[in-house]
Amino acid sequence: MADTAVTEHDLYPTRVAEERDTVRRDTPTIAGTDRPGPFTADELRRHDERGFSILPGFLSSEEVSASLGELGRLQDDPALRNDERLVTEADTGQVRSVFDVHLLSDLLGALARDGRLVERARQILGTDVYLHQTRINYQPGFTGSGFYWHSDFETWHAEDGMPTPHCVSCQIALTDNLPYNGGLMVMPGSHRLFVPCVGETPQDNFRSSLKAQTVGVPSHARITEMAEAYGIEQFTGPAGTALWFDSNIMHGSGNNITPFPRSNIFMVFNSVENRPEKPYSGTAPRPEHIAHRTDTTPL
Amino acid sequence: MADTAVTEHDLYPTRVAEERDTVRRDTPTIAGTDRPGPFTADELRRHDERGFSILPGFLSSEEVSASLGELGRLQDDPALRNDERLVTEADTGQVRSVFDVHLLSDLLGALARDGRLVERARQILGTDVYLHQTRINYQPGFTGSGFYWHSDFETWHAEDGMPTPHCVSCQIALTDNLPYNGGLMVMPGSHRLFVPCVGETPQDNFRSSLKAQTVGVPSHARITEMAEAYGIEQFTGPAGTALWFDSNIMHGSGNNITPFPRSNIFMVFNSVENRPEKPYSGTAPRPEHIAHRTDTTPL
Repeated sequence: MADTAVTEHDLYPTRVAEERDTVRRDTPTIAGTDRPGPFTADELRRHDERGFSILPGFLSSEEVSASLGELGRLQDDPALRNDERLVTEADTGQVRSVFDVHLLSDLLGALARDGRLVERARQILGTDVYLHQTRINYQPGFTGSGFYWHSDFETWHAEDGMPTPHCVSCQIALTDNLPYNGGLMVMPGSHRLFVPCVGETPQDNFRSSLKAQTVGVPSHARITEMAEAYGIEQFTGPAGTALWFDSNIMHGSGNNITPFPRSNIFMVFNSVENRPEKPYSGTAPRPEHIAHRTDTTPL
Repeated sequence: MADTAVTEHDLYPTRVAEERDTVRRDTPTIAGTDRPGPFTADELRRHDERGFSILPGFLSSEEVSASLGELGRLQDDPALRNDERLVTEADTGQVRSVFDVHLLSDLLGALARDGRLVERARQILGTDVYLHQTRINYQPGFTGSGFYWHSDFETWHAEDGMPTPHCVSCQIALTDNLPYNGGLMVMPGSHRLFVPCVGETPQDNFRSSLKAQTVGVPSHARITEMAEAYGIEQFTGPAGTALWFDSNIMHGSGNNITPFPRSNIFMVFNSVENRPEKPYSGTAPRPEHIAHRTDTTPL
């Protein structure tokens, strides 16, 4: 079986034939609390413990407006309609995500290289960083369908060949994230636990998984166990708030029946020492706009 | 058209052929603030303004446990498996609602007649009251699918022939209602606005509408307008908390991807002066377990 061959030398076995034990990360999940930069030592310690940090007022309201303008422009751009970088909702055909926004927009490209982001990513990872993935997620009012519980790293490891969770994401709210419009839920501390998922990865899985994930999701029993152990916290905050989170933290989001859309920029910083190898699930690498492997120049 | 014939003498026209103006209730929505009983005058005034009241600790933890025991018993009762009073989720077949719980359970029957409920219902409605409907809603963890925005009265008027919104519901949480496990959202003050809904009512609509409502829901444009005017508040609180709400308040609930189920008892008290007539949508009356019309003896 591909399963055995792949997992033999693999610290983070997943897409396996049957439920197996979780893998605990015992070493610090940040580079160290003494690294100078915008995060204080306390903030870094807390990030190590919880796996995420919430920074209100990370973008000014002018920056939020400008970014929303770019979002609107990309959503409506007829040139992107049949572009792979644009993903639509399975039910309604509305735009769900746009990938590679740092390349599609000068403004968002500048944001991705902004010191407020890059220096924080360097503090957490302790090395130079590059962009593994960027996107905007757009959860429209009324019909936004959410994302089931998952670890991003689980997919990036299996389908992109990212060796370790030495990688951090920054999500920036472009609209208010309310308790009731599908805001992200995280399990604090769960970034220390890697959860192998059951099920073989189909070739080209990404074509459907970005609409609704069916492979790479933990069992209900595992999620129940983890929710009891770690609890659940919800990311809420006004537009402009940033959420930094470990690539392995367990997270998900509910649907949105309110009229209020929920839009977020999502930028993933990977350590230059953690560049993707051959996908661990044995499938072909996903396209460059989902996981950069050619363009990994440090920021 | 049935539409015109029905709505000519109807204060609350709905299930109409095209969007029409909302109907404003200008008279007080409670009987008066001077009526003696468990609600204070201030609480009644506030209920009139907002259309709902939240009462923490309404049931003791012993009462919650006993009620949950009854819920479990009813869910698993093989005798109820093919009973109309039990409604299952469209996707998964799991139990979504059990109706007529005051008749199916001695314990819940006693609760329905308890002074804490009946006296409050009398204070709000200003008359003797009877039970229009009782049920338990069970939103299981992971797959609970929620209820789209609606006014209960809109359905009770159209499909049960309830003349006016002179009717109040008491919902009691049997599990913690968290911000992120599909808790009820209400629009404070919206009970004063009756929203006609577009669309003809199919015969036996209730067979599908109790799983997922497609007729009797306001347009996206109307919900957006109302959310801007009234705002949205979410009902959260520990098990044992009660929510009293006007039969015409606009409310809905999202899905639940957490492992934490959300179960509520739901008891609807109608004024003896507001007994159902011929359904205003022109359809046959719904079964007795959904809308009592034979057994309307005052409590």
